[in-house]
Order: sequence, then structure tokens, then C-alpha cells
Amino acid sequence: MLNRRALGVALLSAGLMGWSFGAQAQTDPLPSWNDSKAKQAILDFVAKVTREGGPDFVRPAERIATFDNDGTLWAEQPVYFQLQFALDEIKRQARDKPELAATEPYRSVVAGNLKGLMANGGKGLQQALAASHTGMTTDQFATLVRNWLDTASHPTKQRRYDEMVYQPQLELLAYLRANGFKTFIVSGGGVEFMRVFAEKAYGIPPEQVVGSSGLVKFRLDPAGKPELFKEPKVEFVDDGPGKPVGINRFIGRRPILAFGNSDGDLQMLQYTAAGPGPRLTLIVRHTDAEREWAYDRTSAIGKLDKALDEAAAKGWTVVDMKADWKKVFPNGP
Amino acid sequence: MLNRRALGVALLSAGLMGWSFGAQAQTDPLPSWNDSKAKQAILDFVAKVTREGGPDFVRPAERIATFDNDGTLWAEQPVYFQLQFALDEIKRQARDKPELAATEPYRSVVAGNLKGLMANGGKGLQQALAASHTGMTTDQFATLVRNWLDTASHPTKQRRYDEMVYQPQLELLAYLRANGFKTFIVSGGGVEFMRVFAEKAYGIPPEQVVGSSGLVKFRLDPAGKPELFKEPKVEFVDDGPGKPVGINRFIGRRPILAFGNSDGDLQMLQYTAAGPGPRLTLIVRHTDAEREWAYDRTSAIGKLDKALDEAAAKGWTVVDMKADWKKVFPNGP
Repeated sequence: MLNRRALGVALLSAGLMGWSFGAQAQTDPLPSWNDSKAKQAILDFVAKVTREGGPDFVRPAERIATFDNDGTLWAEQPVYFQLQFALDEIKRQARDKPELAATEPYRSVVAGNLKGLMANGGKGLQQALAASHTGMTTDQFATLVRNWLDTASHPTKQRRYDEMVYQPQLELLAYLRANGFKTFIVSGGGVEFMRVFAEKAYGIPPEQVVGSSGLVKFRLDPAGKPELFKEPKVEFVDDGPGKPVGINRFIGRRPILAFGNSDGDLQMLQYTAAGPGPRLTLIVRHTDAEREWAYDRTSAIGKLDKALDEAAAKGWTVVDMKADWKKVFPNGP
Repeated sequence: MLNRRALGVALLSAGLMGWSFGAQAQTDPLPSWNDSKAKQAILDFVAKVTREGGPDFVRPAERIATFDNDGTLWAEQPVYFQLQFALDEIKRQARDKPELAATEPYRSVVAGNLKGLMANGGKGLQQALAASHTGMTTDQFATLVRNWLDTASHPTKQRRYDEMVYQPQLELLAYLRANGFKTFIVSGGGVEFMRVFAEKAYGIPPEQVVGSSGLVKFRLDPAGKPELFKEPKVEFVDDGPGKPVGINRFIGRRPILAFGNSDGDLQMLQYTAAGPGPRLTLIVRHTDAEREWAYDRTSAIGKLDKALDEAAAKGWTVVDMKADWKKVFPNGP
């Protein structure tokens, strides 16, 4: 039997060796992140803003964290998944109503003729977006998206689109929330599209999703029942300089942490970094051609050029997907 | 000394008389509400949506409650307080820059000439709103509102404007939150105006305030620092049919409880009532000329006419301020 003094020495040694006896302290909150500068920057930031009485303490109500979606929380190649939804939905409509197939944008979409869709300043693409996103109630649209998510799968990764989310980011979102942060999506994607899956996929409720939106009108249907009808008119583009504007409009507080992956996130990162007190601004760089994709300065989708230069100049944290992430997708490589 | 049998009888009698021995159960969560049909409707609704396993249970994430602000959470007479802020701010500008005093809208505002402000379709009023709300950064505007709240007082009630809130509603908001509801403001008032005081006055954080808004632009100041600049252009009017649209845009979920006081709340109440499952729709009627004001069908401010008819037709809960509220303002009558 250990005497009290020996027990004391043993406990002290364990303490000096950095062991911890609390189950919580022993658990790595970010197990899919390799030990790296980026991971340490996150852990240090959370530690300092939550240390009560410390110089960098931030009260929980002001612990606002904003995340871009496409390319930051889930993948975005070979095309934005919302665009894939639009194309699939147009094909579905053409199957249901064969008389449509001879008209645009149905003909080009069914033929896979992207060049045709992009002609005349992308007129066909706009028609395809309008025909798949508008002319219906918000409830009808949500049902279409839900059905699509339940039946579609990614063309090369062969998994559900809502399983193309990044495991390390799921851990980061949960870790931030466990430390009193309120996590928001701030994305150029459509707000009504993302809200269908954000709660289940990320634990982010609809009211914490900020995105682009079209005009919606309130009306009574013929039976006198209220409904919200989606009109074919863009109302707000939550991208680039629209992101800080969207943050101001929807959240009304400046984030203390922002995470993006492309030049469309530059102004959100600038706005976040410019606030007083501790700030953490992060960019995930797509460097992993094997497990995900590798692209940056010249990519048509998710172009990361100016924001990468500014990150280097200002010391923002750049997460290298290949080097910093042990795992990319849940239940995947 | 009481024997065990006598103690048992005493406890049983107390129970039969409706006494309760738990400190929590003894506390009335709505002490400023008289026992009335309205109060009972609220208590019954909260009890049924929070009863796990019950037929009307609503999971916490979907317990969305929306409140109008002017006339529902705080007073709105003799004019909307935000309009009073605008007029006071114009007077302040005219004091600071006497050269303005000869021009409109300064001349009419300083002279108290409301007729002049309303001439030509309210052109002067629009100018006054623009000059007090735009042409500055969002941070500068918040500072103006904060300074005004700290120095202004209501012309007849002689109290701070942010103390013109309704005590029974503060209790209701707290009671709902204690039962897992998320409470939102959905108001025709300006979102940036309300956010300055909503957290302190109501316990409602900025991201749960939905309101009207003007165009805001992101830009870098001459030193390269990001700022959000308020442009003189109305962007969204969160009133009437705009309220369900605002709810859809900002919250993305239909409320299960909505509370208003005027025809501007009609569509929010219709939209709330039309959802599936349990719903509670409430209207506060201003019937108390002594402690507050009495007005409804013909009032220029807070007109309650169509919504009152629809409340009667559909069985919505009408709260009679004079009869149902023990107290109107905190520390007041």
C-alpha cells in the first residue's frame, strides 16, 4: 500500500509530466487535427478568450464565430453543390414534363451542354437557377432540397452531399460551442438551401445561417392560408463585401473568429480582424489532391489568391488541408 | 410535538388547498399579470409544449417566440420613440452647426412644425430620418442612439425611454426562455436602433432582433480600416406582410408563439397561427388611459382594427392592458 507521502510524490510527478486526471482534460477536442501551428493557434485562442479574469476574456454573448460554407465546411468541387442541385432539379422537371425538354434551359442541362448555359452572359444558367429555386413556396423548395439530398450522390466521391462535410470542422464547431461560442454560417450560398441541412450536418440552427437570398412574398393561397412565395429576383448576395454586410444585418455583432477558404471571404476576414481585442482569422487551403482536391489561385471555383496574400501579410492562420488534417470526411480517408 | 399522523393530515390538507412545498412551484412566473384568461392561456400553452411525451410537445429548437416591439414590449405614444430620437438628433445637429438651422428639415424640426415635415408626402420627415440615421458608420450610429437613451426622457412620463418597457412582458420573455424558448423581436422599427438597447432592456441579443433596415455598404476608410457605412436608402420594411418575410429570412423557422399589438402585426400572427401543431397568438390592447394610453381602431400610431376583428373571429388571445396587467412599467404604476 502506498503511504500518503509516496502518493503525493506520484501525483506531483504526474502533474509535472503534464498528465491530467480529469477525463475532460485528457480528451483531445480536435482529434482529426494534426498537432500543428494551426491547431495550436485555435487552442490558444479559445483558452485565452474563455479565461475569466484574464486580459483577453470575452463574455460568452460576444463569442461569435462565423464560417463560410462551400469549401470551408463542406466540399465545393467539381461545382458548388447548390449548382448541382439546380441542374439535377432541372433534369427532374424535364423527366416529369417531357414537353419542356425542347426548350431552354432544359435542353442544354439535359444534354450536359454547360457552354450553352453560359452563353449570352450565362442566361441559361440564370434560367436554370430561377426554374429550380423560385416560382414555389419556401416549404415546397425545402422539400425539393431534402429529397435531392436523400437521393443524390457526389459524382466522383460517391457519397451523399451532406456527408461531404469536413470532419475536422465538425470537431471545431463542437469545440467552440462547448466553450460558449455561438457558431454561424456566413456563405454566398442560398440561405434557404443551406438551412435544410445545416442543423443536422453541422449542429447550426436555421437562425444562425446567413446567406444569399431571393425575394420572398407573403400571400394568402386561394383557401386563405398564408404562404411565402419565392420570386425570381435576387435580393441579397452574401459574398465578398456582402459578407460583413450580412453579418451586420443578421447577427449585429462583429465576430471574434472567422473561417473562410476563398477570396469571397476576404472582407469577412478583414472585418473580423479589425475589431478590438483578441481575434482569430483562419483560411483553409485546399492542398490535398488525393483525399479531396488541390486548388487555389487560378481555380474557377473557390479561388484563393488575394486572401492568401493578405493572410501572409497579416499573419492570419492558414490551415493546410493535407498537412493539418488527419482525416477529411467523416467515415472517410 | 406533532405526531406523524397529524403531520400527514396537515401536509395533505395543505396539498388539497393548493399549497405547494417546492420553492419553484410556489413562485408565480408572471407576478405582474392578473389571473385572467390571457394569463391562463399562456401558462397552459407553455405547459403543453414542454410536456415531454405529451401530444403537443415541441422540441426546444423549435420553440420560437416572436414579439413586436413598439406598443408590445415598450410604449409608442405620443410618437414612436425612434421618431423622437430622429427629431432630437436633428435638433442636436442644428445646435452643433447653427448654419443648418435655416435649412430643411432643421428649421421645421427646431420649430416643432410637424405639419411642415409632413408636407409634400412627408418629404421633410424623410429628410429628418435620413439625416439622423445615415451618412455615418454603423458604430457611429450606435453611439448616437446610446447617448440619446442616456440623456433623453419621455415628454409626459418623465422616465428614460428604455424604462418605458412593460414589466409583464419582461416577465413573459424570461418565463419563455426559462422554458426553452428562443425569444425574438420582429418589429417595423430599425434593426440597428433596437439592437442598441434590446439586450439590456429585454435580454434579447442583437442576433435575435429582426427589423427594418437601410442599405449598408462595406468599405475601407482612408487608413485601410474596414467599416460599414449607412446609406440613405431603405432596404427592407419589416412591417405588415414584411414580418413573415423577415421571420423567414432571419429566423428560417415559423414561430409557435407570436405577440403583437397592431394591424402591422396581422400577417405575423396569421403566419404563426397557420403552422401545424400548437400555436399561441396574442395581441395586447391598449386600454389603460391612466397608467399608459388607450387607443385602437382610429389611432395614427399603433392602429389596431383588422387584427382585432381577426382575433375575435379566430379566437386569438387578446390581452387587456388595464384589466390583465397589475403593473405596466417597472418601478411604476
